Amino acid sequence: MKIKANNPSLKSWVAVSPESDFPIQNLPFGIFKTDYLTEGAGVAIGEYILDLTYLHENGFLDGLGLPAGIFNQLYLNSFIGLGKKLTRRVRNRISELLNINNEELRDNKPARELALIPMKEAVMLMPVNIPNYTDFYSNENHAANVGAMFRDKDNALMPNWKHLPVGYHGRASSIVPSGANIHRPKGQLMPQGAEKPIFGASKRLDFELEMAFITCKENGMGNPVSTVEADEYIFGFVLFNDWSARDIQFWEYVPLGPFLAKSFASSISPWIVTADALEPYRTKGPEQEPAVLPYLQYEGHKNYDIDLEVHLQPEGSEENLICSTNFKYMYWNVNQQLAHQTINGCNLKIGDMYASGTISGPDPGSYGSMLELSWKGTKPVKLTNGAERKFLEDGDTIIMKGRCQKNGVRLGFGALRNTILPSK
Amino acid sequence: MKIKANNPSLKSWVAVSPESDFPIQNLPFGIFKTDYLTEGAGVAIGEYILDLTYLHENGFLDGLGLPAGIFNQLYLNSFIGLGKKLTRRVRNRISELLNINNEELRDNKPARELALIPMKEAVMLMPVNIPNYTDFYSNENHAANVGAMFRDKDNALMPNWKHLPVGYHGRASSIVPSGANIHRPKGQLMPQGAEKPIFGASKRLDFELEMAFITCKENGMGNPVSTVEADEYIFGFVLFNDWSARDIQFWEYVPLGPFLAKSFASSISPWIVTADALEPYRTKGPEQEPAVLPYLQYEGHKNYDIDLEVHLQPEGSEENLICSTNFKYMYWNVNQQLAHQTINGCNLKIGDMYASGTISGPDPGSYGSMLELSWKGTKPVKLTNGAERKFLEDGDTIIMKGRCQKNGVRLGFGALRNTILPSK
Repeated sequence: MKIKANNPSLKSWVAVSPESDFPIQNLPFGIFKTDYLTEGAGVAIGEYILDLTYLHENGFLDGLGLPAGIFNQLYLNSFIGLGKKLTRRVRNRISELLNINNEELRDNKPARELALIPMKEAVMLMPVNIPNYTDFYSNENHAANVGAMFRDKDNALMPNWKHLPVGYHGRASSIVPSGANIHRPKGQLMPQGAEKPIFGASKRLDFELEMAFITCKENGMGNPVSTVEADEYIFGFVLFNDWSARDIQFWEYVPLGPFLAKSFASSISPWIVTADALEPYRTKGPEQEPAVLPYLQYEGHKNYDIDLEVHLQPEGSEENLICSTNFKYMYWNVNQQLAHQTINGCNLKIGDMYASGTISGPDPGSYGSMLELSWKGTKPVKLTNGAERKFLEDGDTIIMKGRCQKNGVRLGFGALRNTILPSK
Repeated sequence: MKIKANNPSLKSWVAVSPESDFPIQNLPFGIFKTDYLTEGAGVAIGEYILDLTYLHENGFLDGLGLPAGIFNQLYLNSFIGLGKKLTRRVRNRISELLNINNEELRDNKPARELALIPMKEAVMLMPVNIPNYTDFYSNENHAANVGAMFRDKDNALMPNWKHLPVGYHGRASSIVPSGANIHRPKGQLMPQGAEKPIFGASKRLDFELEMAFITCKENGMGNPVSTVEADEYIFGFVLFNDWSARDIQFWEYVPLGPFLAKSFASSISPWIVTADALEPYRTKGPEQEPAVLPYLQYEGHKNYDIDLEVHLQPEGSEENLICSTNFKYMYWNVNQQLAHQTINGCNLKIGDMYASGTISGPDPGSYGSMLELSWKGTKPVKLTNGAERKFLEDGDTIIMKGRCQKNGVRLGFGALRNTILPSK
């Protein structure tokens, strides 16, 4: 698939620094508001947000077949639900409007000034209303690390792990965007050796570095989506922090899985980077052995080469890079996840979120959670301010970043940043 | 609390047979449509649906402070989100309008004929859009039966079970109303003694008899709801069938809980019986030993005395009563469930659904699933047509019913009825 808007030679008349996540080849969609504009859809370009409501109302998107009011909304669900054929056409048209050689906006100063909102004047909001959220567990390094810690090293993976992408239903209501701060959750904790649980704030609060995809098409109940068809259902991706209270989880999760250990909060980066923009960064996945059942087989490159980082910033101190990994380290890819999710006839909704599971690389510096980085608290992580961490402390800010680079183009997700506040 | 509309001496000018689930003391809310009316809200009375859109548009609900268009909607979310003070006032006004001594509708033939829709002309739809769905596991008989089958009889309950209402996030998208038929799901099955899983239709398809409550108020992230406050959050109840594919579940559920074994479908009865209507049927819950943590303690009667039945109707044959139980057999009550759900700060949405977990009584005839009734397939259930069942077969219809009776009043939920179709 050749997508015009991805051409590495494209340049924009909007100045974009080489360090920006948002060159003209990216054009991710989000929902923003300012002191002077109500909630609506925008596209990131350099340090600006292109106001899609303004463009649409002023004729710059005429002829694309867009319904009236499609961008002047609280969420992108109606827009992405138009289908990838049309949303791709919109992205191509935006690329054209921002192209250095296109005079339509470039030379129309009044329109340009109304259409481009400085990011620093805007607040980014949840990009979609999320009807359903699934969290997978599709990274082998992470599953093996956790298995080795809590079971034994030689049988780290459960017998089902290489046969199906293990996943569970998560809580949609508590998914919040970058910038939302998160109170340390309280709950039941079972101290080692105690006879009964105590109540208190989690002492083992953790992040989990994940990516999530968002669906833009409904299959209807009873209709599985194949690994081939999956591409038409996946609108784009965000960074995902699956905040986890390990001590709450340890006590509650047998036999029905994680519940309150996760549902206090998850957070996402606010710009949805389209699957189209990520097309050039597709890469081969791992060999899957034993062979998977036919409904999970796939052709082509379905993994993505996206560099991922986690930074921990203690209150009043600087950012510490504590994890460098890559989305390519997934054992199960997103097409397989969606095929598995629907093989029983389960119906997808527009705006559903499907998170990858913690993304750990092979080396200790590439582990995607404190649980693994500090190996269950036995190897504290040293910080530049002299402190160390087994798990997260109040005042800590976790910053996640994701970037792709190829053919001189670099694009990214913008930062996902949340601070831990004391429990209420 | 004394609720005017619950008075046992009330009678309606609408004829209500003694066997009806919908006397004037019930007045449950639902969403219906007919060949001549688009989707909208109604209240059940005898064999009729009182069309709330008509009543509202024609002044019969004036003075209550209801927004325009509140009933002319696809779902009841906006209505129940008005809060229990106002929705209770609406129920009281409907009770007044239907009262045998009230002439407003009774003696206004044209209005009466437009306001009362025969149930047989209507299709009942999903009453609410469900943003989040949790399934609890709060019945001790069921948990002990399952534990005894799959672990051992002397340690049937997990160590956490009596300390917290175990629950997990379920799939909201695939919850369907009574009347929707359900295709047998396909998925990965691990035959006993096999080395690798096979793909196929579930051979161990089951129902689970549950009740579910629906929330009508938002707490906001970070704000736990106490067991006392919970009453203001619970609008009403429906019957809930937590369809389960036991063989899919057995292979997939360790370590993150049930996923595809449940997400192919759940079903609910279409009338929401208000918590107000159920007030007279409150009853004492079991002694909880060991004592629960303070946030789970409660005062008063928070269980409900609701007789529940499951009928299995093989294709072309008659209904077989296979389970008689009662909602009073819950170890954890709904106020405790909601307090637990929110103790970590998890936010509730209007229309959320919280299911009880399978409701089994102490005796074999009161078990709420085929898994328990046939004791894992070892004691087939005999049917009147000479056949027997270990699990469900294609063409089987499962009918669930729920009823309360006291002071000469009998009210119920209407039937929840779904038929199993062959896998696609």
